[in-house]
Amino acid sequence: MTDNIFRFPAKSEWLTLLQRPALERKDLRNLVQDIFTEVKLNGDSAVKSFSEKFDNVSIDEFLVSNQEIEKASDEVPEDLKNAIQLAKENIFKFHKSQHQEINKIETQPGISCWRESRAIENVGLYIPGGTAPLFSTILMLAIPAKIAGCKNIILCTPPQKDGSVNPAILFTANLCGIEKIYKVGGSQAIAAMTFGTESISKVDKIFGPGNQYVTAAKVLAQDFGVAIDMPAGPSEVLVIADSSAIAEFCAADLLSQAEHGIDSQVIFIATDETVFNKTLKEIEVQLEQLPRNEIARKAVENSRFILLNSVEDAIKLSNLYAPEHLILSIQNPENYTEKITNAGSVFLGNYSPEAAGDYATGTNHTLPTNGFARNYSGVSLDSFVKRITFQNLTQKGLQNIGKSVELMAEAEGLFAHKNAVSLRLKSF
Amino acid sequence: MTDNIFRFPAKSEWLTLLQRPALERKDLRNLVQDIFTEVKLNGDSAVKSFSEKFDNVSIDEFLVSNQEIEKASDEVPEDLKNAIQLAKENIFKFHKSQHQEINKIETQPGISCWRESRAIENVGLYIPGGTAPLFSTILMLAIPAKIAGCKNIILCTPPQKDGSVNPAILFTANLCGIEKIYKVGGSQAIAAMTFGTESISKVDKIFGPGNQYVTAAKVLAQDFGVAIDMPAGPSEVLVIADSSAIAEFCAADLLSQAEHGIDSQVIFIATDETVFNKTLKEIEVQLEQLPRNEIARKAVENSRFILLNSVEDAIKLSNLYAPEHLILSIQNPENYTEKITNAGSVFLGNYSPEAAGDYATGTNHTLPTNGFARNYSGVSLDSFVKRITFQNLTQKGLQNIGKSVELMAEAEGLFAHKNAVSLRLKSF
Repeated sequence: MTDNIFRFPAKSEWLTLLQRPALERKDLRNLVQDIFTEVKLNGDSAVKSFSEKFDNVSIDEFLVSNQEIEKASDEVPEDLKNAIQLAKENIFKFHKSQHQEINKIETQPGISCWRESRAIENVGLYIPGGTAPLFSTILMLAIPAKIAGCKNIILCTPPQKDGSVNPAILFTANLCGIEKIYKVGGSQAIAAMTFGTESISKVDKIFGPGNQYVTAAKVLAQDFGVAIDMPAGPSEVLVIADSSAIAEFCAADLLSQAEHGIDSQVIFIATDETVFNKTLKEIEVQLEQLPRNEIARKAVENSRFILLNSVEDAIKLSNLYAPEHLILSIQNPENYTEKITNAGSVFLGNYSPEAAGDYATGTNHTLPTNGFARNYSGVSLDSFVKRITFQNLTQKGLQNIGKSVELMAEAEGLFAHKNAVSLRLKSF
Repeated sequence: MTDNIFRFPAKSEWLTLLQRPALERKDLRNLVQDIFTEVKLNGDSAVKSFSEKFDNVSIDEFLVSNQEIEKASDEVPEDLKNAIQLAKENIFKFHKSQHQEINKIETQPGISCWRESRAIENVGLYIPGGTAPLFSTILMLAIPAKIAGCKNIILCTPPQKDGSVNPAILFTANLCGIEKIYKVGGSQAIAAMTFGTESISKVDKIFGPGNQYVTAAKVLAQDFGVAIDMPAGPSEVLVIADSSAIAEFCAADLLSQAEHGIDSQVIFIATDETVFNKTLKEIEVQLEQLPRNEIARKAVENSRFILLNSVEDAIKLSNLYAPEHLILSIQNPENYTEKITNAGSVFLGNYSPEAAGDYATGTNHTLPTNGFARNYSGVSLDSFVKRITFQNLTQKGLQNIGKSVELMAEAEGLFAHKNAVSLRLKSF
């Protein structure tokens, strides 16, 4: 791990040492394009045969039945149900508060302009299967979709080898009011939601994480008029610690990101040498006790441990990196929030671990990775609506700007634009 | 034009008759990819040679000089300057009003969650050259970028054959406070802003309209971590008219969209047969008088003229089509706004022509085309910021959700996540 330790690096080195590990991305575009062509042409039967081919499972009825949902609900332990319910309430509260009131502006006498939000009508949520059933992501996507008022919310998730879906996924989807859950995974699920099939309806926007195939399919879906939540990449956290930080907590926070996958990246910046050294040691101790320690160890090897002189410098470096998650284990963290310019979600103080926000503080955990915090927001209520602009002009309003519009239209060579105004002005 | 006239079509026919003309889009991906590779490798010299090849113009210094800007300002007529200034003020007022205050929510006692907006630091605006100098688009992009507080705002626009840039473009860019204007167009401009060159800096997000090459380049830019404003397509308007509509105005509004290009589409829906017939005739009359009448005539041939029984039906049909611009030339249009679910920008009543919003009401004219009003908003202040989420938990706050987080993390198989909470709970 010593390769990854940098004590007081010069600013000229910052950019280099913050380079993310290059993603070994195969170019899956052609493969995924073939799957899209096939699903567009043959619908359900193509989806079925891809599921057999890639997931080794034969599904005759994609739609999860009511009986399956009831059975799942019986299988989820009561305390987990209560935990999910509590998370749901917090996520609901925070996302509900993101609703925007209409704000009419009179830009000139007689000219009124405003925006109104409308739900995106048809949305598709993708929830990966595999070892960790990400039922928490259902909360993060379905709750704002419901608040927005999306009419048709469908969910696709790959079935397990026996053709069933993890009960916690079914329980959570049902709790959030999703009526259509399909046992379909991979790029064929994204293709089905892009074109629609006999059983799966076409959507306007696709949300949710996935492997390289799912990610490539989401990118391709955009070519067919479907919007997506955001580009995907490996999860990451940056922790800034001063002398008030608790090494044990810092190590635990770093490892909770590292366990996501071997390509996860964690960055630790300390301004106090004692905390720095203690955290490095504590990581070794805690790694030993983790069931997923092989994954976490590899991710730690991809990571950076940096000692700097000041919290100001640490935040500058963090802004350069643009982390998905940023933890401020420092004194008076609220004094520094203004300086943070690039980050997905920020956790303040010693008692705000990332894990809390991953599940239950109320904030969304679908966040921009891979430096996309420079130019993208995480998922929020905004992601499920579009804003329509409205304008209402009285005769007086049109008179106030009419001459200007005529001049500008003429200067742009657009005479019919000019005429649309001239005819009206003449009629007054 | 009679092929395009539909009197009381059955609802079952609506979807078919609303089909947009298929875009003859060449697959430019490979061509554009080659340009990207070359610009990434050879920077300015590659940009220069592509400008020579595609635009037939040799530029040694891409950056527009202060002298050029001063000269341009002298060349723009005073009345046009005043018109641009008036438009700027209205656009500023409306976009300034889109700023969102911070709204802290206590989701549980001891858990505070909120979002803060931060400007996207580096943005690139692309303004096409060609016959119509779209200086109005500079207002639509530069004004919200400035309000958002974007640090580096650069503008690329193709030079004219003599190496100069249209004076109205330079005047407007300078008026909006853009300091870096580059004489570079086409996909090489997009490549330069994606990777950065010796003279043009890399940006985080690219905005603005363009031809097929520019559009293909913007799509490709996303593969390299650059965000874009929205997918592009031909401009379109849908006009709904009842007996209170004025045929002359309806025809003028339809033609003002049609003159944009031969692939523009206009849809006219009337609920009154007299207005319907009069508008059809009036289109012929006005077409004769337009300088761009060949373009407008072709666009009219792509278009649809539909007679329906009620305004309710007309709005249903409009929602299906999801027009970029929607004009409601009807009585009490404000009674119908709630029913509009898919549209870019809406114009209410007889004195709100689209041309007014294109230039000077204050709303943005960069809007979703080609049905993207189903899943995208037009450009607004939101387009130039991202929202960072924050959360601050006290010990009490973490105690309130800690157990739930532990249970959920464990159920997802993420033990390091659980541990980050458990360690803290134990320390209390």
